[in-house]
Amino acid sequence: MNPSLATLKDRLAMMTDLNLTGSILNWDQATMMPEGGSEQRGRQMATLSKLSHELLVSKETGDLIQELTPWAEQQPMENIEAAFVREARRQRDLEVNVPSSLNSEMSEHYSRMYTAWTIARPKDDFSSLKPLLEKSVELSKRFSDCFKNMDHPMDALIQYADFGVTVKSAKQLFSDLRSQLVPLVKRVASAKQIDSSCLIGDFEETAQLEFCKTVARQIGYDFNRGRMDLSAHPFMTRLSGGDIRITTRAIRSDITDCLFSVIHEVGHALYEFGINPLLDGNILAGGVSSGVHESQSRLWENRVGRGKPFWDYFYPILQKSFPHFEKVSQTHFIRAINKVEPGFIRVDADELTYNLHVMIRFDLECQLLEGKLAVRDLPDAWNERYKSDLGVTVPNMKNGCLQDVHWFGGRLGGAFQGYTIGNILSAQFYDTASHKLPNMEQDFIRGDFSKLKSWLNTNLHHWGASISPDALIQLSTRQDLSIKPYMTYLTEKYSRLYGL
Amino acid sequence: MNPSLATLKDRLAMMTDLNLTGSILNWDQATMMPEGGSEQRGRQMATLSKLSHELLVSKETGDLIQELTPWAEQQPMENIEAAFVREARRQRDLEVNVPSSLNSEMSEHYSRMYTAWTIARPKDDFSSLKPLLEKSVELSKRFSDCFKNMDHPMDALIQYADFGVTVKSAKQLFSDLRSQLVPLVKRVASAKQIDSSCLIGDFEETAQLEFCKTVARQIGYDFNRGRMDLSAHPFMTRLSGGDIRITTRAIRSDITDCLFSVIHEVGHALYEFGINPLLDGNILAGGVSSGVHESQSRLWENRVGRGKPFWDYFYPILQKSFPHFEKVSQTHFIRAINKVEPGFIRVDADELTYNLHVMIRFDLECQLLEGKLAVRDLPDAWNERYKSDLGVTVPNMKNGCLQDVHWFGGRLGGAFQGYTIGNILSAQFYDTASHKLPNMEQDFIRGDFSKLKSWLNTNLHHWGASISPDALIQLSTRQDLSIKPYMTYLTEKYSRLYGL
Repeated sequence: MNPSLATLKDRLAMMTDLNLTGSILNWDQATMMPEGGSEQRGRQMATLSKLSHELLVSKETGDLIQELTPWAEQQPMENIEAAFVREARRQRDLEVNVPSSLNSEMSEHYSRMYTAWTIARPKDDFSSLKPLLEKSVELSKRFSDCFKNMDHPMDALIQYADFGVTVKSAKQLFSDLRSQLVPLVKRVASAKQIDSSCLIGDFEETAQLEFCKTVARQIGYDFNRGRMDLSAHPFMTRLSGGDIRITTRAIRSDITDCLFSVIHEVGHALYEFGINPLLDGNILAGGVSSGVHESQSRLWENRVGRGKPFWDYFYPILQKSFPHFEKVSQTHFIRAINKVEPGFIRVDADELTYNLHVMIRFDLECQLLEGKLAVRDLPDAWNERYKSDLGVTVPNMKNGCLQDVHWFGGRLGGAFQGYTIGNILSAQFYDTASHKLPNMEQDFIRGDFSKLKSWLNTNLHHWGASISPDALIQLSTRQDLSIKPYMTYLTEKYSRLYGL
Repeated sequence: MNPSLATLKDRLAMMTDLNLTGSILNWDQATMMPEGGSEQRGRQMATLSKLSHELLVSKETGDLIQELTPWAEQQPMENIEAAFVREARRQRDLEVNVPSSLNSEMSEHYSRMYTAWTIARPKDDFSSLKPLLEKSVELSKRFSDCFKNMDHPMDALIQYADFGVTVKSAKQLFSDLRSQLVPLVKRVASAKQIDSSCLIGDFEETAQLEFCKTVARQIGYDFNRGRMDLSAHPFMTRLSGGDIRITTRAIRSDITDCLFSVIHEVGHALYEFGINPLLDGNILAGGVSSGVHESQSRLWENRVGRGKPFWDYFYPILQKSFPHFEKVSQTHFIRAINKVEPGFIRVDADELTYNLHVMIRFDLECQLLEGKLAVRDLPDAWNERYKSDLGVTVPNMKNGCLQDVHWFGGRLGGAFQGYTIGNILSAQFYDTASHKLPNMEQDFIRGDFSKLKSWLNTNLHHWGASISPDALIQLSTRQDLSIKPYMTYLTEKYSRLYGL
């Protein structure tokens, strides 16, 4: 190997180790850390973030990237060494704008705020979080100000999650989707409603977690290379190629919260497990974008996990674990888990209204960063949008603007667009896979999900971050990002379900 | 504050963050990490270790220390800023000898070896660990070779744990102790033996852990600033001043293993909790030496936890948790937990024979590093010493030379002397405290351990690493290290117990 390339890889492997170490600290904070640990944990995470940032933006790293770029540009897309140089350059070009002190300040602030959120949220206490949130808006603005040539203060933030997407392009995409989605939601609302009361009952938490582990294992989650724990907000985290963890939560009265969270996080985890092991321990070993990552979680959660073939296999197992379901027919159960009902909780939302939740957050983030909305007015603005967009009255803050971890555990802005992009992509990927694998869903009935997993491994996961999101979509589906397959799927499914 | 001092403190705070982050990774590896994580975890820990080392040995750090030393040398011992400079200098003078690459190699090796040990030990598989142990000996030798002016290859290793102790001084101390201990052990052996069969039974693991948590809480462990988990080998780890965790293990047939492990680790934790919060997050926030640390764990485990006043309070609670003990008198129970019986497991050893276990390890480490003992001959050498020193036949490797984590999770050499120094010191500290607090043991009977804890906080713990071990012993007890109080305690206690 070219010695400069080897040196660059060594430097960025160290950076990756620091970043993954930060993820371990973050996981620990969310699942294990006692209350007393939060003060110093923030500083520890800030130190890791500072050292990682310094490694990336250092002159040595810059010189190596500059030296290697002409070579890398001549290589085909599939050359992973060239991809490494490309991605190093892309990341450095972003980070070089941001002073190290700002990164540390952000990292420390988010760690403290996360702890404050876990305490304040159950108490419905917005006022104690308000100054912290104001600081977050200020930090995001200062962060954004570091970048030149951006049309919108949120554009820089979006680049970290969804490379190539801008506020302008997202707004266009969301508006197109909205114009087709809202009429469908209205048609469903005027149809005969589904009775989902069968989902409510008394489901012992440990039994829920056991059932969810069974599901996770069966669809391909490897517990020798991961684990499942409890946290306030479910998440997946990659700590290394052989250590990819998920978290969930269990609500005693409602089995679906835990179940679909787990399937969702397993979808994320299968992506990470599927990445080419040759990329492990360096900057290409990760999902390519938030949108593509969400496409994997939503694909497993909705296309697989809310479908009939899946439940042909799992429903008898569920009934055995929870006698509550003995008198509920499988057909009735499947209708219930697919019920459309505008609500006020994003993670509980049905497939149709989910994107409306995302758009509310995206718009409010934009307004906060544009300075058009003050933090003190956020709860009212939130509640008004829920009234106008979803027709629901938000009962309290904890199920209102305090519900998502995103604004309370990391940079404010740029984290939500990926959810809707992911929903859109999940249809493109699923349709392509099922076209290539005609017996795929028959296998689900027998509890065999390996064909779909393999196809995703080979066509999506394997690449890691070595090609751009756009290239990945094009390569695997032979299409660009398009809302058409998604709207076709939703329209067919919900027309059938609601007899439209 | 002097700006150079502020800069030095900032640099070493970053180093401390990296070291504590390493401890989090280590804790996670021992308690939570799935098998698949071990490969990359080693590299992550090596990266942290490398960056920490580089911060310490850098020219900038060296220049700052050099600039501040003349000032620091003029300050009284109690000046914590001066103590900071002194300790920074001491640590740097050690580390500057060791190349960064060797540190990384060691760190990565120990992480891998730990995983290998957790797999090989239950299978009694020495042969798979042999090459790793040979590598450890080689690494320790190379490490030792980095230091000049050391009389023995283990002296440098000892400095990291017990500053000021040498192989020569430890051998002298051990030989003095041995000359008084062995006759006492022999007198006990010839007396009427204690029947400890009442300790064996069927004790459900969860109930054991619950009881141990009750004990931990009552003697002062703060679960808001810590947690208790399971690991192969019990340990305490400081992750920050507000996050000090302990681990234990539960053996169903034997309640004492878990119980005395927990009291032992709580003893360590109380030390860390008691350190001056002003020192938190930097190099002085930690125990001053392995010997002083062990004095705290052994003081709580043996002087408090095996004493009558302690059980006057806890025995009724134990009986309630475990009906097994309903028919066992408290007197009989206390005799049983203090039974002297030469065995082959160090952590199960009684107070009298414990030090003999330590001396075997210390001597074998010395011989391995002197090149007088080959790793392949270690099991035989181990077993022979157990035969000659303790008169017992070691039944297998897992309860023989594979029993301790020390040789399989960190630097080989220099880790064991602290246990015996700790035993010796525990008597000096306990005697001083009970002299100053005449009602201390009466309080124990009512479940109140706060006076002793407070005295230790004020006189020992508070200092952290801001004065030397020798100064700390002198300051708190008005004595130097001496085996006299320890031998007096042992002789009185066991003469009474065995009617000698």
